[in-house]
Amino acid sequence: MRYSKFFGKTEKEVPSHASLKSHKLLHQAGFIRESTAGRYFFLPLGHRVQAKIMKIVKEEMDAAGGQEMLAPVLHPMELWKETNRDNTAGFELMNIEDRRGAEFALGGTAEEMFVDVTRKFQISYKDLPFNIYQFSTKFRDEMRARGGLLRVREFIMKDAYSFHRDEEDFKIEYKKMWHTYMNIFKRCGLDCVVVEADNGYIGGEYCHEFVVVSDAGESRFLITEDGKYAAHEDVATFQLDEVNVDEEMKEMETIDQPEWVQKMEDNEKHYGKDSRHFLKNVVYRSIHGDIIIATLRGDLEVNKVKLEQVLSLVGQLVEATDEDLKAIGSKTGFVHSWGHEFVGKGKHKVIYVADSSLKTVKNFIGGQKEDTNDTINVNYGRDFTHDIEGDIAMAHAGFKTADGKYTLSEDRGIEVGNIFQLGFHYSEKMKKATFVDNDGKGKPYYMGCYGIGIGRTLATIVEIHNDENGMVWPLAVAPFQVHLISIGKVGKDDEVLDRAEKLYNELEALGVEVLYDDRKESPGKKFADADLIGVPLRLVVSSRTMEKGGAEWKLRAGGEAEDVKFDDLNKKVEDFITG
Amino acid sequence: MRYSKFFGKTEKEVPSHASLKSHKLLHQAGFIRESTAGRYFFLPLGHRVQAKIMKIVKEEMDAAGGQEMLAPVLHPMELWKETNRDNTAGFELMNIEDRRGAEFALGGTAEEMFVDVTRKFQISYKDLPFNIYQFSTKFRDEMRARGGLLRVREFIMKDAYSFHRDEEDFKIEYKKMWHTYMNIFKRCGLDCVVVEADNGYIGGEYCHEFVVVSDAGESRFLITEDGKYAAHEDVATFQLDEVNVDEEMKEMETIDQPEWVQKMEDNEKHYGKDSRHFLKNVVYRSIHGDIIIATLRGDLEVNKVKLEQVLSLVGQLVEATDEDLKAIGSKTGFVHSWGHEFVGKGKHKVIYVADSSLKTVKNFIGGQKEDTNDTINVNYGRDFTHDIEGDIAMAHAGFKTADGKYTLSEDRGIEVGNIFQLGFHYSEKMKKATFVDNDGKGKPYYMGCYGIGIGRTLATIVEIHNDENGMVWPLAVAPFQVHLISIGKVGKDDEVLDRAEKLYNELEALGVEVLYDDRKESPGKKFADADLIGVPLRLVVSSRTMEKGGAEWKLRAGGEAEDVKFDDLNKKVEDFITG
Repeated sequence: MRYSKFFGKTEKEVPSHASLKSHKLLHQAGFIRESTAGRYFFLPLGHRVQAKIMKIVKEEMDAAGGQEMLAPVLHPMELWKETNRDNTAGFELMNIEDRRGAEFALGGTAEEMFVDVTRKFQISYKDLPFNIYQFSTKFRDEMRARGGLLRVREFIMKDAYSFHRDEEDFKIEYKKMWHTYMNIFKRCGLDCVVVEADNGYIGGEYCHEFVVVSDAGESRFLITEDGKYAAHEDVATFQLDEVNVDEEMKEMETIDQPEWVQKMEDNEKHYGKDSRHFLKNVVYRSIHGDIIIATLRGDLEVNKVKLEQVLSLVGQLVEATDEDLKAIGSKTGFVHSWGHEFVGKGKHKVIYVADSSLKTVKNFIGGQKEDTNDTINVNYGRDFTHDIEGDIAMAHAGFKTADGKYTLSEDRGIEVGNIFQLGFHYSEKMKKATFVDNDGKGKPYYMGCYGIGIGRTLATIVEIHNDENGMVWPLAVAPFQVHLISIGKVGKDDEVLDRAEKLYNELEALGVEVLYDDRKESPGKKFADADLIGVPLRLVVSSRTMEKGGAEWKLRAGGEAEDVKFDDLNKKVEDFITG
Repeated sequence: MRYSKFFGKTEKEVPSHASLKSHKLLHQAGFIRESTAGRYFFLPLGHRVQAKIMKIVKEEMDAAGGQEMLAPVLHPMELWKETNRDNTAGFELMNIEDRRGAEFALGGTAEEMFVDVTRKFQISYKDLPFNIYQFSTKFRDEMRARGGLLRVREFIMKDAYSFHRDEEDFKIEYKKMWHTYMNIFKRCGLDCVVVEADNGYIGGEYCHEFVVVSDAGESRFLITEDGKYAAHEDVATFQLDEVNVDEEMKEMETIDQPEWVQKMEDNEKHYGKDSRHFLKNVVYRSIHGDIIIATLRGDLEVNKVKLEQVLSLVGQLVEATDEDLKAIGSKTGFVHSWGHEFVGKGKHKVIYVADSSLKTVKNFIGGQKEDTNDTINVNYGRDFTHDIEGDIAMAHAGFKTADGKYTLSEDRGIEVGNIFQLGFHYSEKMKKATFVDNDGKGKPYYMGCYGIGIGRTLATIVEIHNDENGMVWPLAVAPFQVHLISIGKVGKDDEVLDRAEKLYNELEALGVEVLYDDRKESPGKKFADADLIGVPLRLVVSSRTMEKGGAEWKLRAGGEAEDVKFDDLNKKVEDFITG
């Protein structure tokens, strides 16, 4: 491809809101352009990389027995109603009505669609298992879309759905997909940490995220040194230290407290005890209007997703506002660990949730704080008890694993893929989602699903593979294999230009993917553009290299430039691209 | 691929509303399933064909210098407003609002998007020309979706947009795309007639449709025997015979007429003259509320698209109802050729349009028909004249070409692709859609666009390539190259089954695409399924063929079955698939 007529050339400026390296570089090098926030054009360079990633994903999925197909983008809303996901996924689901009044969802994921197409067939146990997948545009009505391709509102996802006779058979597939994903990301130049994660609105009982460690990521996870335990913060468990469980319970009393004692550090100073001895309350509101008060030990923080799981309100909690606190007769810093109710009558209720950590401390301070007093010697189980108890606290580096044997450290990264056990989550909610077993009876399929965001994978590769001059593409996903530069002026250096032209045609004829910078630009501009775009191998033909009977060979990833004779060049390029 | 675990097996039933052969066969053979009306799942078999068609399109587009990229599916509505297409394409455009209130169109075509991404760059004359294209899902809010994949509401389209310095450069591209399209359809096994067509809401001055002759199609076109003139009925011109232009104009008068004289044939009988001597009026309503009365010679019919073009109301006319006629004080059969106005005051108006044929007749009968009288000796230009005149009549077989030299015949077919001259239609309407010319001045780009519906192409191949037993895929677009069938029972014919298995593995290793029917089904069922699916080459391994040391070789397209020795088989298959 001639760069002179190539659409989407480099430019220096970056969008003012671009903060991530991948966002800046992909814009500058002409890989992407923003249409509206979170929706991107993939220009020819970006499209070529995306296509290569998709090819790798397809090859590995097919090798694992996957069967590619394609579902419509518009999903009949009745399907989402059948599984009640029109509600739980409501936050990010886009709806549309056609001019006959039929309602559709713009596909965010496609579990219902793939179950729906499967139940159109009479599936026998002999047909199982199978894994069907698609590459298709997905939509998420994100409130904030930022970070270039890392968090968008529209993207191509490979989503796969497997159907099984039983859990045992599913587990074989889950392992196979795990392995397949490791191969895919490795071929893309990415090392992954596989972490346990939360199923969220996908449903099912367990899942794993494939995370590439990077500061640009939003997935915070906890991991042991040997890597045997790795879990997203939303599911990471840890051992609670037993603070003073052997202490004798004292009588609860309300005591005066100076007005300056407001925050946790004030408490610690005033009472001379560390934060573990104090009660902490964190307030949320559900999208249905209920108020949730989470009570936990003063040194811990609430993990909202854990809390949502305990309440079966996945994706449905938001932080409470001053208005919300007022509605239950409270205000910031003065929330009680028990006893709040809505002021006046209403259909909503206050729900208290107790973290497991409340059982590790005797004689808590706090719980009923007022302007100039508070309670002390408060004991969970004696002075207050909540119907809902569970692990709702955030794990941190330095905590021990649940079995107490290992110390956790924390890291963050980009989630590039995930695999989900779904079990009977969909097949039991949706009618006739059954196969005929060998006993002649209809039984629900046991299912799994498996997703990879293609654009996010692309951006992640850039986050990992770059230097101060631009991107450094791994060969397997590079937009081109060779970046050929000619240096010379028409009229003066025609021999050089002709030789570059000849080389371009020869390499193209060999099937090498060449980006040929045939522009009348300065060598400096051409070299800078080549570095920015990051094609793995740069070849330069100039009067200097012509004198040596060849071209200059330089790898973008590093190393010295060398001169290679024209006679040896084509063979050497072929060897390079076939690895 | 093993058919035992293949998703989407054959079934006998067809959807009750399926009338077209391609719809029935693609359903029965397990290529597609309807999700909701006009939205289809492409099952693995259907997807494989679609992917092959896309690959052919891509190869030919790339060979012609096209650059693939990808635009978002959701188009910001402001862009459609910029070109006023939110109005003209309003009929079929789907709209959506996100939860921040931003408005989008679901892409139907993407002219605005491709201009928008281009104007994000400072394009110089040195960058031109370029042709950028995408494969992406398109949406049409069709009132009626029927005919399987031939008229749908959601489909993958290859849409290309070319940008040029001037018309001359564009014309080179137009010719190149024409040629490219012929190659594409030929490789897909389709012969096309290229017909002049109407640009519709795409805009621009001229375009061509690529039509595959078939009764299943909706494109009616007129063509001369030598094929040099071929035009869609919406643009086909023809020579009007001069009926009695030399006759002397008589005085117009109103005469009594029996009540039974209502229809054209009544008139012909009563007056003893052929239909050309009568005035005919056809009434439409625009979506804006105006009434349009088209007046023409009695032997001709109105072509609505021609009428819309004359009025610059593309896609905006509907047939008038009884209500509409009442609103202008008329009723069916009694519409006047001049003089109607809305009863009472209103913001709408009555617009008369005269067909060119009115100038070929003297002394018309009709024009002011009432219950028991009508006018005679009516002369256009003397007794009535309309501001808007033009060619609004439908061409028919037997008519002469406009130059009178050739006779037209008519045919119908399926429009599988089209190429459009756009000129400055978009670049002049959209701000900053300019390039910097060598004189330093900004000038609008001259443009063209080029579309192919992938699913419709697929269905068209089926309409053309089938027989009474099923589909007969051309090799280049077949879902698999070889359909391998093993015949034998486990335990009894293990040797046969093992040999089939070995053959399957050998062929797969050679890169041959094999659909291997390894099911425990009867030979009859397996043969019938193979015929229905229509893979080009069928190989059978049975105890009979084993005795002859080979497999049975049979082409789906016809010819006798033959036995081929295993020793020769792999080579012969390779030769077959490489053509």
